[in-house]
Amino acid sequence: MDNRPIGFFDSGLGGLTCIPYLMQALPNERIIYFGDTARTPYGSKAEKTIRAFGAGIAGFLAEQNVKMIAIACNTVSSIALGEIRRRHPELPVLGIISPASHTVAKTCSPENRIGVIGTKATIRSAAYPHKILRYNPALDIYQQACPALVPLIEEGIIENEIMDLTLRYYLDQFLSYNEIDTLVLGCTHYPLVRRNITKLYPGLRIIDPSEEMLESIRDALGRRELFASGEAGAKRADNIFYASDLSENFVNMINRIFAGTDLRVTFKSIDLEEAAEREGLDYGF
Amino acid sequence: MDNRPIGFFDSGLGGLTCIPYLMQALPNERIIYFGDTARTPYGSKAEKTIRAFGAGIAGFLAEQNVKMIAIACNTVSSIALGEIRRRHPELPVLGIISPASHTVAKTCSPENRIGVIGTKATIRSAAYPHKILRYNPALDIYQQACPALVPLIEEGIIENEIMDLTLRYYLDQFLSYNEIDTLVLGCTHYPLVRRNITKLYPGLRIIDPSEEMLESIRDALGRRELFASGEAGAKRADNIFYASDLSENFVNMINRIFAGTDLRVTFKSIDLEEAAEREGLDYGF
Repeated sequence: MDNRPIGFFDSGLGGLTCIPYLMQALPNERIIYFGDTARTPYGSKAEKTIRAFGAGIAGFLAEQNVKMIAIACNTVSSIALGEIRRRHPELPVLGIISPASHTVAKTCSPENRIGVIGTKATIRSAAYPHKILRYNPALDIYQQACPALVPLIEEGIIENEIMDLTLRYYLDQFLSYNEIDTLVLGCTHYPLVRRNITKLYPGLRIIDPSEEMLESIRDALGRRELFASGEAGAKRADNIFYASDLSENFVNMINRIFAGTDLRVTFKSIDLEEAAEREGLDYGF
Repeated sequence: MDNRPIGFFDSGLGGLTCIPYLMQALPNERIIYFGDTARTPYGSKAEKTIRAFGAGIAGFLAEQNVKMIAIACNTVSSIALGEIRRRHPELPVLGIISPASHTVAKTCSPENRIGVIGTKATIRSAAYPHKILRYNPALDIYQQACPALVPLIEEGIIENEIMDLTLRYYLDQFLSYNEIDTLVLGCTHYPLVRRNITKLYPGLRIIDPSEEMLESIRDALGRRELFASGEAGAKRADNIFYASDLSENFVNMINRIFAGTDLRVTFKSIDLEEAAEREGLDYGF
């Protein structure tokens, strides 16, 4: 039994898509979310920068006395997971790549043709193919970077011809040429355009790593006996959402994600001076 | 006579579009450029964040012993120019809004219908209409935010149907409904899609504030007798380009901008730890 909160972070807003599932599946748990909206998007930045930013945020969450760090960001999970685990040996640190890779490896056969889409950094790291092939070396995996999707989604350009055209720009040839039948949404923003994708490519099987990650959080809490007791869970207002920049986009995205749920949340802007000092401490590598 | 360099900065890569003109027009001058590629784009962030980032970079340039700070970023010029001037009373600090506003006010009549496009923050600040109307209160000015343009341009999606469609998404109705005949490109990224705009809307007069800013830099150097002597100008390799993130996009954008020129430049990645400490000093307001 452990009533400390779960630390959860993303490079920006995308990781918020996991939160309603997490809160509904594990209603006793408190969450501290950090979205690095001041420096989003990460996916086209250099690896050194991504490692420094990821380590800085993990350090911030550790200082908030969390019982676990869950990295909702595919880019950070691809590049910085090892670094963050080395810095926080006392905490379980979960990435988003392994759980989905395990599901793909388990449920696909050599007849399937598997596609992975993500940011430039995620695709360049080849984290998904490496993991999937480690679990099941017989599979065929193809990758495609889609760098314009995140900024368009962050601007709310979703139910729109521009989004459809951008998806077709990246996916038409990729899917047909490689005869993809299973597509991994290797970026937490992409579930927000899942409906566009299924409309454009109706036969495709879609894997959403956020759903698989939720299972792995539940497993890790269970294995280590870290579930929270009921009393703490009643205090829903204790869920805290930090953003390094509390902008209009942040508020719009939250409204979009939490529309239709009865979940109550509290939002806080993180103090920039404090954050810079904390990050300063963590940049030294 | 003053052989110190000119400090020049932008939220990211857009400000680089001004540099070849500046180097050709003022070949004796050395330039220190800072592009905040680790935190770009600024245009949809909160005003407090934009002021803090702008002040931090201006402080960094002042420490490099520049003789002038030129803010190529429309968003920072709109939001943080006053703050930066207050912090650096010893230096001339030039924004990009005033010079273009002056040109519009001087060359347009009440028969013209003037449009301004920019980021959300620039448009919300109404910096262009305020300035233009101060110089010429008889003019009609209309504004349109185009938040998806910067991320698409930073991803190199330019000579492409997606860019044309995105431009039409923002501009078709705006231009025709308001009968715009003069369009101010209120973001330093937009000159990179100027060709798309003139192809889609052939009759439109385009105002590029970078060109007007160049004149204002020359004027300010002349008025204060700050021109560099010839000897320093010979050392072209002394031009330094700092980026907070030396990513693939940065290199691609530089190649695009400097293609076909004979200008030699040196690039440096700024040390993140140092930057965070410096910014920490400047965040206290």
